[in-house]
Amino acid sequence: MTTSHAPVYLDNAATTRLDPEVLDAMLPLLTDHFGNPSSIHSHGRTVRTAIEKARKTVAMLLNTSPAEIFFTSGGTEADNTAIRSSIETYGLTHAITSPLEHHAVLHTLEHLAKHGRIKLSLVNVDEKGHIDLAHLEELLSTAQTRSLVSLMHGNNEIGNLLDLHRVGELCRQYDAIFHSDTVQTMGHFRHNLQELPVDFIVGAAHKFHGPKGVGFLYVNAGRTKIMPFIHGGAQERNMRGGTENIYGIVGLAKALEIAYRDMEQHRRHITGLKRRMIERLREKMPERSGAPVQFNGDSANVEGSLYTVLNVSLPPSDISDMLLFNLDIAKISASGGSACSSGSNVGSHVLAALPGLDPDRGYVRFSFGKYNTAEEIDYAVDTLVGLYQKELIH
Amino acid sequence: MTTSHAPVYLDNAATTRLDPEVLDAMLPLLTDHFGNPSSIHSHGRTVRTAIEKARKTVAMLLNTSPAEIFFTSGGTEADNTAIRSSIETYGLTHAITSPLEHHAVLHTLEHLAKHGRIKLSLVNVDEKGHIDLAHLEELLSTAQTRSLVSLMHGNNEIGNLLDLHRVGELCRQYDAIFHSDTVQTMGHFRHNLQELPVDFIVGAAHKFHGPKGVGFLYVNAGRTKIMPFIHGGAQERNMRGGTENIYGIVGLAKALEIAYRDMEQHRRHITGLKRRMIERLREKMPERSGAPVQFNGDSANVEGSLYTVLNVSLPPSDISDMLLFNLDIAKISASGGSACSSGSNVGSHVLAALPGLDPDRGYVRFSFGKYNTAEEIDYAVDTLVGLYQKELIH
Repeated sequence: MTTSHAPVYLDNAATTRLDPEVLDAMLPLLTDHFGNPSSIHSHGRTVRTAIEKARKTVAMLLNTSPAEIFFTSGGTEADNTAIRSSIETYGLTHAITSPLEHHAVLHTLEHLAKHGRIKLSLVNVDEKGHIDLAHLEELLSTAQTRSLVSLMHGNNEIGNLLDLHRVGELCRQYDAIFHSDTVQTMGHFRHNLQELPVDFIVGAAHKFHGPKGVGFLYVNAGRTKIMPFIHGGAQERNMRGGTENIYGIVGLAKALEIAYRDMEQHRRHITGLKRRMIERLREKMPERSGAPVQFNGDSANVEGSLYTVLNVSLPPSDISDMLLFNLDIAKISASGGSACSSGSNVGSHVLAALPGLDPDRGYVRFSFGKYNTAEEIDYAVDTLVGLYQKELIH
Repeated sequence: MTTSHAPVYLDNAATTRLDPEVLDAMLPLLTDHFGNPSSIHSHGRTVRTAIEKARKTVAMLLNTSPAEIFFTSGGTEADNTAIRSSIETYGLTHAITSPLEHHAVLHTLEHLAKHGRIKLSLVNVDEKGHIDLAHLEELLSTAQTRSLVSLMHGNNEIGNLLDLHRVGELCRQYDAIFHSDTVQTMGHFRHNLQELPVDFIVGAAHKFHGPKGVGFLYVNAGRTKIMPFIHGGAQERNMRGGTENIYGIVGLAKALEIAYRDMEQHRRHITGLKRRMIERLREKMPERSGAPVQFNGDSANVEGSLYTVLNVSLPPSDISDMLLFNLDIAKISASGGSACSSGSNVGSHVLAALPGLDPDRGYVRFSFGKYNTAEEIDYAVDTLVGLYQKELIH
């Protein structure tokens, strides 16, 4: 093991490197085109035009109308808006979610439940992290009032994908409002909103090589009307107050455009990297008392999960707690759980919610992006294997 | 009148041009330093350090502790957070504000009042837009419960300044929570938070030559604790979920640093421009039936108002409705009211709330910044005068 390797970034589910093409698109809005889009003069009109062009691009890529796309400060604000505003607008008192959701969803709903605004039902999950759809239907069918259902499309930690069509149809059958946190699939999978039976989905630009601090909320205008979450001026057709993050918005649209343009190529490339890591880990990682390397959730199901995420479960050892630290010393950036909670040094709530998980095993989430190379994957595998072999000798 | 002049931007209360020094500070965060600050690896630590350095800079300039500064997506979110979270945290059922507030405050409070969460009292204002402090005290002293008071420091349309010390002391006397929307004074006036009796103040970077899409909320930790408004990860010490807009935050701190560094020089320069415009308008603008040019609110009180804002009231004429349009043709960007509502083509709610305002007069808000020149002021005055002279001849 050497520490002289160039830094290897394998945490693309946490955030991605800004694409230089995106920065180029943003720079005019960071220099000469600085007006306030709400101003009616030429300085304002120039940037207003840029925002509406960005909205059209996003809408076109998702096969929906620009009137259904609302820009926000990110995926978290978009999730908060969908949940809080739909509950407020429709006077909902019941919500259904899963213990595997991102904190943007889970903490928001738990907050509302704690303060007596809603009753919160958690749908069961199996040991692979799959949502129990029979239980979901049971929860829907026995609900006393109209429900809000919030279930994510792609799990950021274990890579599981939800069948949005099936869940959406189920929600319609029981007149529930359906929100899906699509932050991890946006820009990596195609969403056809003409066909998708959802009320709200969201995106965060920095998850697909766009800028941080900007995202969007899709609101199904044919089915759903909501009040604003952030009140203020008439921005976003009165739906979201606050001067628009114009270079962020332009960057988001450019990033999504590139993501769609190059999706098949990137998918092939990244799927190849993930497959390579699975194979090499299975081949090289030493067993412990007959316990081989495993993969959490559905993440080793290459065709059926987020191709960007691999959650590795390593044989029990004394170095389990120090894995990320040792990888960091070797200049490999990976994650133990959600990046959004790792700052607080608490364990992964997603892994904790999976029945039967062995606490003595070591857990590392590797997440891949278009800038990663096969050589980086090999370096990461060799480093992990090296750590275990070294520990075996001691 | 000629239309071959270079564009003249006199709408700096709506937004300001990004300072190139600020962009330079942001660029590393838009390129190589792209990690997620919540990640514990080196890619994350680098940007985490940048955010905490930015927080220290802001805190130091405002003479407070970094633990009291929370970054947001802008002034509007900061205002919404202060209002909604303090009402929710303390179970408040009464708020006091004025009809001259920014919509970020007014619409938020009106929304809560409309849905029966609070009783909203509006404090009286005089024809100059000054808050009636005796009425404020009456409202505070007769309130049945603890009140939230939200009154802005500097009015974005008419430039009036509030005596924050006096209002803050009054609020403390009656155990009210005091929030002040300081968006227009932040970076243009010094705030000493060790001495200021406020619970919340806010800032928006794009009002002082920083980036759009980022702002901050100051929470007086010694007096006030609030729950988050946007729920999600552990960012901002669990106070604001969502991956941080890192280049925005770094840009905000740099912009505030420059604003404080050069404040006296810019204040002198901009005050000179405002004085020049007042004098030249008084000298050159033709009277109509004895009606001279006037200035709304306190904005002609150069030493006692926002030095960046001049709200001009022009003699009654047939072109009142077309003033901004004609200025725009002459490449002069100015505003009729708040930029945040001009997109909706409704009139200014601030001017409408001033008693005795003549609807036949023409209203233009000019707002100045450090990049404006005396020549630009002269061009704007000559253009306005030309429009009126031309109209006189017809």
